[in-house]
Amino acid sequence: MPHLERFSIAMNRDLLRKFDQLIGHKGYPNRSEAIRDLVRNALVEEQWTRPNEKLAATVTLVYDHHTRELAERLAEIQHQHGPLVVAATHIHLDNDNCLEVAILRGQSDRVRQLAELLIAQKGVKHGRAVYTTEGQGLW
Amino acid sequence: MPHLERFSIAMNRDLLRKFDQLIGHKGYPNRSEAIRDLVRNALVEEQWTRPNEKLAATVTLVYDHHTRELAERLAEIQHQHGPLVVAATHIHLDNDNCLEVAILRGQSDRVRQLAELLIAQKGVKHGRAVYTTEGQGLW
Amino acid sequence: MPHLERFSIAMNRDLLRKFDQLIGHKGYPNRSEAIRDLVRNALVEEQWTRPNEKLAATVTLVYDHHTRELAERLAEIQHQHGPLVVAATHIHLDNDNCLEVAILRGQSDRVRQLAELLIAQKGVKHGRAVYTTEGQGLW
Amino acid sequence: MPHLERFSIAMNRDLLRKFDQLIGHKGYPNRSEAIRDLVRNALVEEQWTRPNEKLAATVTLVYDHHTRELAERLAEIQHQHGPLVVAATHIHLDNDNCLEVAILRGQSDRVRQLAELLIAQKGVKHGRAVYTTEGQGLW
Repeated sequence: MPHLERFSIAMNRDLLRKFDQLIGHKGYPNRSEAIRDLVRNALVEEQWTRPNEKLAATVTLVYDHHTRELAERLAEIQHQHGPLVVAATHIHLDNDNCLEVAILRGQSDRVRQLAELLIAQKGVKHGRAVYTTEGQGLW
Repeated sequence: MPHLERFSIAMNRDLLRKFDQLIGHKGYPNRSEAIRDLVRNALVEEQWTRPNEKLAATVTLVYDHHTRELAERLAEIQHQHGPLVVAATHIHLDNDNCLEVAILRGQSDRVRQLAELLIAQKGVKHGRAVYTTEGQGLW
Repeated sequence: MPHLERFSIAMNRDLLRKFDQLIGHKGYPNRSEAIRDLVRNALVEEQWTRPNEKLAATVTLVYDHHTRELAERLAEIQHQHGPLVVAATHIHLDNDNCLEVAILRGQSDRVRQLAELLIAQKGVKHGRAVYTTEGQGLW
Repeated sequence: MPHLERFSIAMNRDLLRKFDQLIGHKGYPNRSEAIRDLVRNALVEEQWTRPNEKLAATVTLVYDHHTRELAERLAEIQHQHGPLVVAATHIHLDNDNCLEVAILRGQSDRVRQLAELLIAQKGVKHGRAVYTTEGQGLW
């Protein structure tokens, strides 16, 4: 984190005390890091409103692996979108249920569409995407 | 805002520049206010996870006033929960559609339940609540 | 709600039972209305991703009316954006705090920008917008 | 998906047409699956409001692996919470940035706290959790 700049924030003492409690509970090492997280979250959210950014995402899928051909279909879709899918990790929750998390990278519209397509597959019990960043330009 | 405290934040220069652009676009007068808003949002969100807080909310409802007895039903529900409903404003969007926004106050669980009940009424096309604060303890 | 169409949904019996509990708790009169609400929410959310839709919104603001010139500033901003602001309701939460809810209508980008500008004013303790619909095309 | 039940939904024809467009765009095979997804999302969201459920989550973290001791710290925290962490996948986004996604299982409060602790580490540029389900009781 080169080129650090320092600036000062004015805050009511009681508000600050409440904030300190909240970030203590969440495990932040200090206020600067908690505030930088709030700032970076706002920036990543805004990045995803622009159509042509190069971004990353993860898609979490929970499904019953007995569902007819679902695992094959999910693998097939990921292969068809080859350059967008970097990796997928699969765990066994119990005899029936698996959790799979795929890591996607690429142009934001295409990444979002692939995430939605995976979530939409019949037999996926719960699917959610995290739309994140490739990290460049964020410190 | 008495008892002001100042503390300093360290941030990468380029991150800070992006944040300044974002808050300029949103209309913030300065960084302190933008950061206080992020902090207060996090605190209000946390207040709503506790069951017995005294809080405020608004419920926005869009509906067709021709829907049989809907306006009467919404008024009836609000009257039955008298102490929770402070005011309601109603506007005419066109010949058919109205927008109504009700202001609620009270114990958080009861406010949330009333908001959900209003939104659940048949004929309400879109309903959304804002869970906010009574302002005490926030600066 | 003319031109009704009926279609059938297949659902696991236990999933359906849980859904029935959830919607009973929220106060829905029947499954159809609960499902229509889920569908309409998804559609309104998608409408707000398009830039030139004519839409409605409400902005809820909690602030201390002793904050120097804040009430005047909020009124001034609303007047400057005259055609976008339909009405505003104001209640007194206690000696210091007010809650104001403004109803906005217009082109989606401009409505969003006005909502953000109101929320960004120094002295607003908590501000949140509900991005809703004018109701046309939703039943 | 044994014990299937069928029930019928009444919906305005134009609303249904719009819904069909939306789910076509998202890649759903049919209306039943799209509606089941909306229903299951609502149920999983509600599960996470209860404190003692056994649930699963994923945490996505983007960070610069040059950040002093960050990778070690993330690994250390995961080891300290051994039974909660099932697996973690790590990819290299570029010379500096990595994306790591950890899969967590356990009692909902403890899973959430671990997710927040990982996200709070200094040097994590963006962190987000997906709070999902172990799949039992969802079809």
